Amino acid sequence: MSDHPLKQIGEFGLIGRIQSWFNEETSDLLGIGDDCTVIPRGDDECDLVTTDLLIEGTHFLFDKITPEDLGHKSLAVNLSDIAAMGGQPKHVWLAIGLTDRADLPWLERFFNGMNKLARKHHVRLMGGDTTRSQKHLVINIMVSGTAAASQVKFRSSARPGDVLFVTGTLGNSGGGLQLLLGNHHNTEDPAERNLIRAHNRPDPAVNAGLWLGIQPGVHALIDLSDGISSDAGHVANRSGVTIALELTDLPIGADLRKVALKHGWDPVQLACSAGEDYVLFGSCDPDAWESLRVSYRKEIGAELHRVGDVRDRPETDAGGDPSESKPGLLSGGQVSYLKNGTPIDFNKHGFDHFKS
Amino acid sequence: MSDHPLKQIGEFGLIGRIQSWFNEETSDLLGIGDDCTVIPRGDDECDLVTTDLLIEGTHFLFDKITPEDLGHKSLAVNLSDIAAMGGQPKHVWLAIGLTDRADLPWLERFFNGMNKLARKHHVRLMGGDTTRSQKHLVINIMVSGTAAASQVKFRSSARPGDVLFVTGTLGNSGGGLQLLLGNHHNTEDPAERNLIRAHNRPDPAVNAGLWLGIQPGVHALIDLSDGISSDAGHVANRSGVTIALELTDLPIGADLRKVALKHGWDPVQLACSAGEDYVLFGSCDPDAWESLRVSYRKEIGAELHRVGDVRDRPETDAGGDPSESKPGLLSGGQVSYLKNGTPIDFNKHGFDHFKS
Repeated sequence: MSDHPLKQIGEFGLIGRIQSWFNEETSDLLGIGDDCTVIPRGDDECDLVTTDLLIEGTHFLFDKITPEDLGHKSLAVNLSDIAAMGGQPKHVWLAIGLTDRADLPWLERFFNGMNKLARKHHVRLMGGDTTRSQKHLVINIMVSGTAAASQVKFRSSARPGDVLFVTGTLGNSGGGLQLLLGNHHNTEDPAERNLIRAHNRPDPAVNAGLWLGIQPGVHALIDLSDGISSDAGHVANRSGVTIALELTDLPIGADLRKVALKHGWDPVQLACSAGEDYVLFGSCDPDAWESLRVSYRKEIGAELHRVGDVRDRPETDAGGDPSESKPGLLSGGQVSYLKNGTPIDFNKHGFDHFKS
Repeated sequence: MSDHPLKQIGEFGLIGRIQSWFNEETSDLLGIGDDCTVIPRGDDECDLVTTDLLIEGTHFLFDKITPEDLGHKSLAVNLSDIAAMGGQPKHVWLAIGLTDRADLPWLERFFNGMNKLARKHHVRLMGGDTTRSQKHLVINIMVSGTAAASQVKFRSSARPGDVLFVTGTLGNSGGGLQLLLGNHHNTEDPAERNLIRAHNRPDPAVNAGLWLGIQPGVHALIDLSDGISSDAGHVANRSGVTIALELTDLPIGADLRKVALKHGWDPVQLACSAGEDYVLFGSCDPDAWESLRVSYRKEIGAELHRVGDVRDRPETDAGGDPSESKPGLLSGGQVSYLKNGTPIDFNKHGFDHFKS
């Protein structure tokens, strides 16, 4: 689709167009263009709603993922969106378009994978739609959840001076995808198996999101689905700030380092742009950072990794990516990259379904 | 998919299997297997949620429907599900998987069609997902709404003695589909144009559903998406009753009669089994029927058509379609057909995506 106009405007440009076609005031509609829609409900409560459409051939290859893993992943990517708002997921709707290859035994295994993850996070299947698809398997999942209105975390809340952090290592999923696409992975190698598992069975940061949601020092929050380059761009544009990422601080695990060395990949490129890690990326008040880091380790039993800081947008920068500059929806911002504190030219974008 | 096991169990058999895989108690979950999920919300209020997945090649042919009509219809089928519970639709989420053929001008026209219907019924687009699809256009719409808990109308509430009614003529959409598939329709013939319009731009019975929802005499309610034979079967099974349909009373419009005569179709077969009419089918207390009919005409400005009555399930009938006999979810029932009051053998089933 090289001459397809959607390629020029990209996914977020398209969302801006859809907004303009609906000609709606967006200022009173929270969460448009964020991970979830936010619907206020009297008191301090709000509903969160997210939906993700997964289509065979675009989002997964039928022969490269087990039905259990696909069931798990389809739900996981939606739970991750609720986590990214600091919310508690509650209800799930599944609409599925089945091909001939997705027969009853396949479907039972798919539901087993989904059900295990649903039980782990106490979410419940409430309904949906089942139908046939001629060519490609289609899975649409919608998850609703709740959060205290005062604690919902938006992409637009990053402030100059904030410390930037991620809740886990980056690039594992991208490394796993490379192995699957290359058809030359060694299933005897635990490092390769781990990367493929990271790609096929991402672990949504539900508990981390809930905990970060109630920390007043945490400002912006987003989940890394498209790669930190792209997702940090969304935070930068929505918040009207510069996101400065220190490339040497990006957490890259031992498995990815080892496999990347073997195959001649650049792990930093994978960490920045491969996407689908489904860890959380956030910003926090610099004065709160130390205690946040310590409490997180104690409460969640894992590490927050500092990956950069938020800066003022340069005066001369009128707006960043013009496709994200719809009034009321998106404002200008930029992502800059540092190596050991020195700005470098590193222009790697994350994944966009229409641009890629 | 002649040897596909899903063909044997059908869509409702599949829903039963999904229930069993999730191993859930369904008794406290309202609306599973109905038109909408029903989520109680303190006081007398509940949320209604419905989702419909439309896939090119299964639900529509890209070249046989304008983008405006497809946008309209995608929303209409979901509004119809809310109407069938007696609810007020409020919020819409759209997930769309775009092929190369669905370019920006196409998409703008699609949204125009959807937006017009959304404005008419005061529902609002809240968010969604946009992505690419390699082969077939995919549209998933989710609509939420509200209703007073005491007024929600279920499929399971039909009682022996009830009068059965529909809110509009039957078979027009099926006639329109025949014309489109046959490729020989005469666009100069207003009757043929009307049938095609009924297929491509169904008018969801939102106001009728809201009004019927608050009438205590109305017991069961469902929308006719699969054809009255199939949809009456759902009411019969869920209510554990016999639905007796008087074929001579099925409302068939002048356009369908005329076009059916021309092409040699049986309009009663189309009315029973072609589906996608999106009128409401309900049951009401026989003592309330006359005043319901009169008030409906006065308030809604249209006719309720009496099409039969509800009877006890025969003692010898253990259960109807076994695929609908999951405990707590579906119970046995049957549909019988009369012609001028005399039972006849008329075994025409409505549409099932897996059986057809």
